[in-house]
Amino acid sequence: VRPSLARILARYFPVTRHLGVRVREASLARVVLAAPLAPNRNRSGTAFAGSLNAVATLAGWSWLTLLLQEAETPAQVVLQDSSIVYSSPATTDFLAVCMAPSVAEQSRFQAAFHRRGRGRISLRVVLESKDGPVATFLGRYVAQVQA
Amino acid sequence: VRPSLARILARYFPVTRHLGVRVREASLARVVLAAPLAPNRNRSGTAFAGSLNAVATLAGWSWLTLLLQEAETPAQVVLQDSSIVYSSPATTDFLAVCMAPSVAEQSRFQAAFHRRGRGRISLRVVLESKDGPVATFLGRYVAQVQA
Repeated sequence: VRPSLARILARYFPVTRHLGVRVREASLARVVLAAPLAPNRNRSGTAFAGSLNAVATLAGWSWLTLLLQEAETPAQVVLQDSSIVYSSPATTDFLAVCMAPSVAEQSRFQAAFHRRGRGRISLRVVLESKDGPVATFLGRYVAQVQA
Repeated sequence: VRPSLARILARYFPVTRHLGVRVREASLARVVLAAPLAPNRNRSGTAFAGSLNAVATLAGWSWLTLLLQEAETPAQVVLQDSSIVYSSPATTDFLAVCMAPSVAEQSRFQAAFHRRGRGRISLRVVLESKDGPVATFLGRYVAQVQA
């Protein structure tokens, strides 16, 4: 039986419990993680930039992990680098939405991963409060076949 | 009495408790925050990228907050955007070290802040495990005089 994304996150990433992260959607079309404002608030009472980044990081990691589960190749997924732009404060609970990259991007990744046992892909994650987008995250993830 | 950085972080950022963040040094020369591996581990048992980013975000925020405490101008400090490069896994507890930017950078920031009530400054934070550097964070922070 393949473990659910919620179980994987809860088991392997203690921060998901500390930040109150929940899995709203987990598919190859998109991954949506939700987090409450209370444990993630900053001095202004809005969402802490580091929490927004952490939940975005998990959303991208989750999408690529689901893709690799599909292929049934045990692999390690790590974040190589990322950038994030914060456009407005999140005054409510928030979501991190990782949409599937283009089919061309996915094919390029899959080809490299199957040829060399290692592939890299850029994933975009949008952070949203109840009032709309608050930040955009771009992360380059590397998947490596486990020895 | 001016509240200590440790008290400010504990009071206003619940994540600092959840991630186990401690203040090691708090001066205008540098801010050093420490975090334990256990609550911040990822699926590989090394430090979660999002936790490294969150502690770096706090270190930069802290340095600029100390600078503004010195000037005794109540101001809000927010992160506008950031980027981070992860160079090797952190297999131990880790530190986030924010060094003071150059005197020229500080002067440029202070001039804008005092002239317009708003200033922006780029801060570099190095993340280190017991084995050396594991990531480099660059954040652009904005300080705004509070109304």
